[in-house]
Amino acid sequence: MSSHQKLTGIFTPNLVPLDSRGDINEPELRRYVDWLIERGVHGLYPNGSTGEFTRFTVEERRRIIEIVADQTRNRVPILAGAAEANVKETLKACEYYHSLGVRAVAIVAPFYYKLSPASVYAYFAEIGKHTPIDVTLYNIPLFASPIDVPTVQRLADNFERIVAIKDSSGDIPHMIRMIQAVRPHRPEFAFLTGWDAALMPLLLIGCDGGTNATSGVVPEITRKLYDLTMAGRLEEARQVQYDLLTLFDTMIYSAEFPEGFRAAVELRGFHMGTGRQPLSAEQRTDLSALSNTLQCLLSAQGFTDQPVGGCPVSKQPAVDHEEVGQIVQNVLAELKRRGLA
Amino acid sequence: MSSHQKLTGIFTPNLVPLDSRGDINEPELRRYVDWLIERGVHGLYPNGSTGEFTRFTVEERRRIIEIVADQTRNRVPILAGAAEANVKETLKACEYYHSLGVRAVAIVAPFYYKLSPASVYAYFAEIGKHTPIDVTLYNIPLFASPIDVPTVQRLADNFERIVAIKDSSGDIPHMIRMIQAVRPHRPEFAFLTGWDAALMPLLLIGCDGGTNATSGVVPEITRKLYDLTMAGRLEEARQVQYDLLTLFDTMIYSAEFPEGFRAAVELRGFHMGTGRQPLSAEQRTDLSALSNTLQCLLSAQGFTDQPVGGCPVSKQPAVDHEEVGQIVQNVLAELKRRGLA
Amino acid sequence: MSSHQKLTGIFTPNLVPLDSRGDINEPELRRYVDWLIERGVHGLYPNGSTGEFTRFTVEERRRIIEIVADQTRNRVPILAGAAEANVKETLKACEYYHSLGVRAVAIVAPFYYKLSPASVYAYFAEIGKHTPIDVTLYNIPLFASPIDVPTVQRLADNFERIVAIKDSSGDIPHMIRMIQAVRPHRPEFAFLTGWDAALMPLLLIGCDGGTNATSGVVPEITRKLYDLTMAGRLEEARQVQYDLLTLFDTMIYSAEFPEGFRAAVELRGFHMGTGRQPLSAEQRTDLSALSNTLQCLLSAQGFTDQPVGGCPVSKQPAVDHEEVGQIVQNVLAELKRRGLA
Amino acid sequence: MSSHQKLTGIFTPNLVPLDSRGDINEPELRRYVDWLIERGVHGLYPNGSTGEFTRFTVEERRRIIEIVADQTRNRVPILAGAAEANVKETLKACEYYHSLGVRAVAIVAPFYYKLSPASVYAYFAEIGKHTPIDVTLYNIPLFASPIDVPTVQRLADNFERIVAIKDSSGDIPHMIRMIQAVRPHRPEFAFLTGWDAALMPLLLIGCDGGTNATSGVVPEITRKLYDLTMAGRLEEARQVQYDLLTLFDTMIYSAEFPEGFRAAVELRGFHMGTGRQPLSAEQRTDLSALSNTLQCLLSAQGFTDQPVGGCPVSKQPAVDHEEVGQIVQNVLAELKRRGLA
Repeated sequence: MSSHQKLTGIFTPNLVPLDSRGDINEPELRRYVDWLIERGVHGLYPNGSTGEFTRFTVEERRRIIEIVADQTRNRVPILAGAAEANVKETLKACEYYHSLGVRAVAIVAPFYYKLSPASVYAYFAEIGKHTPIDVTLYNIPLFASPIDVPTVQRLADNFERIVAIKDSSGDIPHMIRMIQAVRPHRPEFAFLTGWDAALMPLLLIGCDGGTNATSGVVPEITRKLYDLTMAGRLEEARQVQYDLLTLFDTMIYSAEFPEGFRAAVELRGFHMGTGRQPLSAEQRTDLSALSNTLQCLLSAQGFTDQPVGGCPVSKQPAVDHEEVGQIVQNVLAELKRRGLA
Repeated sequence: MSSHQKLTGIFTPNLVPLDSRGDINEPELRRYVDWLIERGVHGLYPNGSTGEFTRFTVEERRRIIEIVADQTRNRVPILAGAAEANVKETLKACEYYHSLGVRAVAIVAPFYYKLSPASVYAYFAEIGKHTPIDVTLYNIPLFASPIDVPTVQRLADNFERIVAIKDSSGDIPHMIRMIQAVRPHRPEFAFLTGWDAALMPLLLIGCDGGTNATSGVVPEITRKLYDLTMAGRLEEARQVQYDLLTLFDTMIYSAEFPEGFRAAVELRGFHMGTGRQPLSAEQRTDLSALSNTLQCLLSAQGFTDQPVGGCPVSKQPAVDHEEVGQIVQNVLAELKRRGLA
Repeated sequence: MSSHQKLTGIFTPNLVPLDSRGDINEPELRRYVDWLIERGVHGLYPNGSTGEFTRFTVEERRRIIEIVADQTRNRVPILAGAAEANVKETLKACEYYHSLGVRAVAIVAPFYYKLSPASVYAYFAEIGKHTPIDVTLYNIPLFASPIDVPTVQRLADNFERIVAIKDSSGDIPHMIRMIQAVRPHRPEFAFLTGWDAALMPLLLIGCDGGTNATSGVVPEITRKLYDLTMAGRLEEARQVQYDLLTLFDTMIYSAEFPEGFRAAVELRGFHMGTGRQPLSAEQRTDLSALSNTLQCLLSAQGFTDQPVGGCPVSKQPAVDHEEVGQIVQNVLAELKRRGLA
Repeated sequence: MSSHQKLTGIFTPNLVPLDSRGDINEPELRRYVDWLIERGVHGLYPNGSTGEFTRFTVEERRRIIEIVADQTRNRVPILAGAAEANVKETLKACEYYHSLGVRAVAIVAPFYYKLSPASVYAYFAEIGKHTPIDVTLYNIPLFASPIDVPTVQRLADNFERIVAIKDSSGDIPHMIRMIQAVRPHRPEFAFLTGWDAALMPLLLIGCDGGTNATSGVVPEITRKLYDLTMAGRLEEARQVQYDLLTLFDTMIYSAEFPEGFRAAVELRGFHMGTGRQPLSAEQRTDLSALSNTLQCLLSAQGFTDQPVGGCPVSKQPAVDHEEVGQIVQNVLAELKRRGLA
């Protein structure tokens, strides 16, 4: 059994600021880490999906953890993303991050290939046997092989070093099934959600916390939602959840993930640089429009000034829905005709 | 604006008992209606998906509403499923059910063909314009064309006879988006969920009630979950939600829908007859095993005796998970090889 | 064993012209039947998906078969869509269509509910046991429960009245697996494809024919593609397949199915009336634009005059692809944000 | 315009033999390269999906190309998989492989994150601008972001170094649409299919060749299918395609990809070692059963002896289909109940 405390609260899956050459901007990353901790996040989660771990080299991923660990100086626990090309390389990362003093690692299920439950189990079992550091399973079926309920149960039953799951499916009955399957025998096993859009209801049905991308942008709000919900102040929590959903939807659906989050962190005063995935001219224009929308949302919450030109009075855009529906239909038809999936 | 009260609480999407010739068993249906009302459901919802509306003829669907309305005698409101082959036929059903005094109709989005939002809007707009009775939209993307958020908003904005939506997607952020889009201008518009697996969290984020198939089997429990949740007794509610999920999963995933529910209602003392979808010999054997499991779940809740032979001590089956995972993998491979889906 | 000949060649899944009141336009339907037969289609297939069978009443579906059978006067075989609300009603339709002298019925797998292979088998087994007329299985996984390879094999092995499958999945390996599983024991069992987009390659790997919606619009071309392919004139066939794909894509993806086909049949000189699924003003405008495009495609093949205003010189539209891609991205993001599945 | 010849014929996406420590088995890889070339494959394709490129380190991927290039000694062209963590790293790989004298690189669309067409275009545009070596786009929508038809067209129009697409979707109309969009302006652009299950029909509608995993196991058969098809000997080709499909299905669906192919190459006489993705005890048992089945299939074609114990007389297994269907239904229900997506 791990001697450590259960993982609870809000862990920020932080982005990595880049400099003008596209390399890690170390001073800005350090400044961002301090800013997040000062605003009350319970922990940090570098090398997650929001942190674009797949777009860095092995060496860069290690450097990111070094910087974050050094800057954090144990003020909050760190959950370090540690997935590498195969079990052997992943275990090397576990060992190294352990030597840096992080609280635990988070390991996404194998991706690219879509593996069966038996293979996902075999993969994590091999890691569970040899890891020197606590492991959080990371289930994100949109991007990687799913980790199903019996697999979580077996891993929890057999490997005490496996101490938590971060689930980004947002599926509430799935979360309940996992809790029912694991908690009776492993009361200290932690259930974290990565789906900000349903953070309040997931906490209410039994989750211990979340690794929420919004907390990298508005740590004050995500933390407030957590506190209100845990205190049972449901009316207030519900309104914060509604607002957080609007912000989350804007960031996640209006640009290629995680560019919307990058744009929003920039608005909070950090130089994020240009992302590693190239963007077209049109995408760059869009991102600038999104930035305006985000600034209005953030200024409505008191976090920034309104953009030059001001903000619309109402949050509800004056959209002609039939027109939008029509455009959508045409474009979908065109998409299909041209052979998109 | 409708002069009626907002639709709230638990509406039972009731099954239809059949007799030995496969026809509607009227006395048993009347007895079932009384039983449900006596156990506290807030309303009835005949001709829903659980009620297998597509497997009855036009004449039978009308007869079902006649019987339920006559037997209910206004003790509780009735939501009558009214979808027919096209707009003209559906409007005829609306008119007839109106003449029978039901509270409202529920109309599923067009199915078989997968329609775009523009077409779904056009379909409901035509109905909204001419219906003499309040209409509940019915969104069940698993079976029918989806009704998206802007479509719900436009229909709510333009047609006062459209007074509610029943959503069976179980998607919580989707429900929040609908509530945000509609409630400011139509505070009396009702949001009902058809997904029992997340009833508690959906009520907590703002739903007004549910049309829940479990309430046809254990009306006492579904009603209790509703009452505890609305009273803010969250610890107790959470445990009831967990138990209800176990029961729901067993009924919905262990047999062809809605045969599991039919078997469970039989255990509560009703003669349900043989369903209209033929079953293989193996499926019939399975259903009998499911019936045993359900009887144990129901007896654990005090609703029936244990089955002959007793029940396992623990709810957790002694399953060798790796073995199950392995079987699953083999079967899926076989499935694919043989060309399924 | 059926005394009839194997089903081969091109069967037209014909649309139903409607009059100004939205009822079946009998004289126009008769004229359309003659026109199709004169242009060389091998058979007719009323009450298919293209024929919008779900949007007619039981009585109307019967009337459609009566008219088509009467007008055809045995010049070509008729495959009559016979799916009704349940097995009993479907068998009644089989009996009636048998009495009208049609060659066979086609029965789609149960829809709305998504059934397992065991249930799909049980459904067709019940029909196979009692049908007085040859049955074609109809697999269209986009709209109805899939009929997998072992189910087709078992049905073919056990019921001699089941004599063919119409498969609209367009999946070539799936078609090969079915042929490998069934043909050795049932050499007269027919394999028909409903996917015009791959008609040539499907014929080349072993299909016997097709039920192709394009043959209701350009029977001359679909028939020509069939003849060239069967004669092994592959270079010519390939070019016709390419052209047919362009036409098919335009009709199927530029409007709600089957409105594009309806518009195209209108261009061939038939009064089709207004479809039963309501359209928005924008959809009607779109349909009129589509009609123009179709007229150009048809005039390029010599079937009609060019529309007033002429046609573009090249078939390749002068599209700014990045712009289109951008619109698409925006709209998809908007779609997701608004909660469309 | 590239000075090289168009890419045509069968390229083998070869597996990498591992030694007892799990490292690259260089002598066996060299022996395997010779064996493939001697059996007539037109080219080699190391670091593809079959070659498990994601499970090797950056350094190992480079070593694999070094070995294959050195051993091939220009006897056949090499298509080298070159995808790395981001554009900069991918371009470094392009440069290095260019220095080794390979014919072209193949680059899969970005994976893990699911990118929009605009982003996929921007990614390949950046590569197309700076690559010193010909590039083959690699579309495998099952594993990576899809490359849609207008994106292929724009890339082909704008970057002469982009000379081919390898498409593993198996979607025939999609392939036709790509050919229609690109070939008029870029007649030397090559269309290769990665979907062995439909190789013959894809060649017949216009493909130039394939990168087919079966050619790493039975190069004689895949090559024969190519030759028969290109020669228009359709009857013979069809039978070979049928047999190849049976073999392909067995390898791809009976074990975690690409373990079935690894087992089959072992049967052809190579020491493949243990794959890098851990397997459970049950999976290892299964693989051994699969190996037996494969040996029977290969011996039926004359490539190996029958396994000890012999082979079944007929290829059709004596399966009770209803029983299988039943097991499947039960397992799927269990799967869903336990929360597997």
